[in-house]
Amino acid sequence: MITNIQNTPYYAVIFTSILDQPDPEYFRMNDRLREQAEKLEGFLGEDSVRNDYGISISYWKDLDSIELWRKKTEHQWAIEKGKKDFYKEYKIRIARVEREYEFKKPIPN
Amino acid sequence: MITNIQNTPYYAVIFTSILDQPDPEYFRMNDRLREQAEKLEGFLGEDSVRNDYGISISYWKDLDSIELWRKKTEHQWAIEKGKKDFYKEYKIRIARVEREYEFKKPIPN
Repeated sequence: MITNIQNTPYYAVIFTSILDQPDPEYFRMNDRLREQAEKLEGFLGEDSVRNDYGISISYWKDLDSIELWRKKTEHQWAIEKGKKDFYKEYKIRIARVEREYEFKKPIPN
Repeated sequence: MITNIQNTPYYAVIFTSILDQPDPEYFRMNDRLREQAEKLEGFLGEDSVRNDYGISISYWKDLDSIELWRKKTEHQWAIEKGKKDFYKEYKIRIARVEREYEFKKPIPN
């Protein structure tokens, strides 16, 4: 459920957002964008949680993959649509993941 | 509400976790850790959302600040306690934030 990559370095697009109001169309658009991202070669995974606000992190092989995602999918349209209809506020951070650690609880006998 | 920094580069500690079960003690521990982090000079902010799972991202001036946080607070104890009592699974990613963009909807007249 949590994206496992291990092979550092890679890139993360950290998207933090506050919605104007929950809108079923927004969630449909997000699902579609996710499907399109999954088809791109440099896409490594996504972790996404929404409560009072949302944090979605997509992981990418390199900056070129992110650029391709931006240009070759509905992404640009979604940003314009989102600004107009869905978001009160958002922030995008592009980050280079340098280290990754994990913990998994052993399954009890 | 969304952490605003702008002054790239800086560092992000991306903590993704699945709880065994929600435990009030866990949330108290988290509040305490947050208070301790806020007192450190290199701490820049935190964005945190929990639903089925949790994503907490803390932002730091540099890697030395993260190291100080790790060593000088209850952080180490919290990790051990968390592994024993709270988490089913977690992942920590250390990332260098290289770019930051934002959108804020204009307030209507």
